[in-house]
Amino acid sequence: MNESRANRILTALKEQGAEQMLIVDPMSICYLTGVSMAPFERFYGLLLRADGHHVYFLNRLFHVPEDVGIEKVWYSDTDPIMEIVAKYLDKDAPLAVDKELKARFLLPLMEMHSASAFINGSLAVDTTRGVKDEDEQEKMRVASDINDRAMAQFKTLIHEGITEKEVADQMLQIYLDLGADGYSFPPLVAFGANAADPHHSPDDTVVKAGDCVLFDVGCIKDGYCSDMTRTFYFKTVSDEHRKVYDTVRMANETAISKIRPGVPLHVFDDTARGLISDAGWGEYFTHRLGHFIGLSEHEFGDVSSTNMWEAKPGMIFSIEPGIYLPKDTGVRVEDLVLVTEDGVEVLNHYPKQLEIIE
Amino acid sequence: MNESRANRILTALKEQGAEQMLIVDPMSICYLTGVSMAPFERFYGLLLRADGHHVYFLNRLFHVPEDVGIEKVWYSDTDPIMEIVAKYLDKDAPLAVDKELKARFLLPLMEMHSASAFINGSLAVDTTRGVKDEDEQEKMRVASDINDRAMAQFKTLIHEGITEKEVADQMLQIYLDLGADGYSFPPLVAFGANAADPHHSPDDTVVKAGDCVLFDVGCIKDGYCSDMTRTFYFKTVSDEHRKVYDTVRMANETAISKIRPGVPLHVFDDTARGLISDAGWGEYFTHRLGHFIGLSEHEFGDVSSTNMWEAKPGMIFSIEPGIYLPKDTGVRVEDLVLVTEDGVEVLNHYPKQLEIIE
Repeated sequence: MNESRANRILTALKEQGAEQMLIVDPMSICYLTGVSMAPFERFYGLLLRADGHHVYFLNRLFHVPEDVGIEKVWYSDTDPIMEIVAKYLDKDAPLAVDKELKARFLLPLMEMHSASAFINGSLAVDTTRGVKDEDEQEKMRVASDINDRAMAQFKTLIHEGITEKEVADQMLQIYLDLGADGYSFPPLVAFGANAADPHHSPDDTVVKAGDCVLFDVGCIKDGYCSDMTRTFYFKTVSDEHRKVYDTVRMANETAISKIRPGVPLHVFDDTARGLISDAGWGEYFTHRLGHFIGLSEHEFGDVSSTNMWEAKPGMIFSIEPGIYLPKDTGVRVEDLVLVTEDGVEVLNHYPKQLEIIE
Repeated sequence: MNESRANRILTALKEQGAEQMLIVDPMSICYLTGVSMAPFERFYGLLLRADGHHVYFLNRLFHVPEDVGIEKVWYSDTDPIMEIVAKYLDKDAPLAVDKELKARFLLPLMEMHSASAFINGSLAVDTTRGVKDEDEQEKMRVASDINDRAMAQFKTLIHEGITEKEVADQMLQIYLDLGADGYSFPPLVAFGANAADPHHSPDDTVVKAGDCVLFDVGCIKDGYCSDMTRTFYFKTVSDEHRKVYDTVRMANETAISKIRPGVPLHVFDDTARGLISDAGWGEYFTHRLGHFIGLSEHEFGDVSSTNMWEAKPGMIFSIEPGIYLPKDTGVRVEDLVLVTEDGVEVLNHYPKQLEIIE
């Protein structure tokens, strides 16, 4: 049990008026206990209490390490699990519940009047998870370092006649050979006009001279995710496409240059979007600038025009401007960045100057 | 929109006292609309109303066919989606909600007092889905037919020196070549003592003479799942293991022989368990006899000692007795069965007599 993380969550919860919270998102439980678990349809929960008497609810079919440093309550499939949970709640106080708690667990707690009110407490967990501690920062560096080295190899896979799928099929082994535990998400490989769809899946398209070659890829290592995009061109690049590329790269670099504690996150989106709009491609940058990342590839929180949160030391998110010209080309340049005490550390080091693959 | 399925659900709901239900399980929505969708964190819902004015809530980023035969309400990420949903609810009547509805969607509906009560209505959906109509029965036959033919090929993969993983890695292509769309679940291949763990994952274990070779496998075809287990022996089989095998086979066949409408499901479990217990291996049959299956590999409903439901024509479930002797061997023989008007149709036809792989 990571008491420091639990206490950060409890402090944030107190501001919402709650001193007890039932967490059920397996990733949030892993964040606190270090236990990774896929409970499927069975109830799996961690009750955080301000008095420090936390309780971990486990089905007897689950396998967890002996020593998690917290009281375990085991139940069987035939036990009335929500009645058991209710016994550990202060029924005269509000209960914060995880936003992911399902109706089949929440409704019985309500019917038993097992708390004085039920509120969504996930913001306390999500904002805590959004600020990475030193252990997490180091793991994120390692995952991104593998991603940098993998990108150098992915580029060499491209040659005359190869398809997106044939490239994608070779990526997992490259990651594993570099020490990763797997993908953080299925890799995106897109050639030419396919890259104009930010969610294109690798298909049988063959690379042609003049195509962009976009890789949006990430691996997972020790539970933490990397995520990076680089866009190359094959054999040759038109003047127009070079302008598109340089605009996106400058949007990435200029947005990153503004990052330091205290600056609202929307400023980074505004910066990148303004630069792309000034170049005339504003309507072709069709998504937010970035998203938070850590144990999951997409975590709560984003870098968008509407997010007023201030950057805080320890936050890690992506900066990924793009320009998508339908039936023509698509360019995205994405790094993960860590907000530091006085600025920013870019976790990806693969170069961003336009590279032509010969 | 499949009105006949919707009406069956609404009839069952009425018995629970509700005339409106908010369904969010993507599989249940697919069952009604034919639309397959992975909404991830975004709200995705289908409101069924007894007055026939059903409403389909969709995020603008989702792709669904033009003509679903139902009113569509589109929303954007910046819209207050639960306020929109609330407008379509009868706030003076109870609302049945899907057991899968998450707190972040349910709590706002409650705070807006958008219904007079909130109840878990999933039993109405699940019992309806548990009884397959003719179209579904035919799709289940096709998926199981592919599974039968795949099993014949899987057996031929086994030879001196091969590992579980090497066998498992060849299975997807065999399914695809037979016309399947993919796995219904990752295949389970277990040799010898590994088969004593019903949830063993294929590893680098090499097959040895005298080992059992257990395949628990299934494919998906046109949205419907197959699931079958056969256990072979490699080169030779001990007298004891032959007895184990024949006991399991007889448990499977005897349980199936009892299936007809009106018989409570626990009777089939009792039959198989009794037969295995009489042979002295009762404590080594460690799981329920079967589970429902259809659009998902495991659907609501099981064949267990505590399920008092009566068999109804159209129900499809697995019959899968097993004996698991730790550090020794494991045998399971599993078929999917369809309850008919006057008995049972076994969907799997791969033989069940003990086969020795030479």
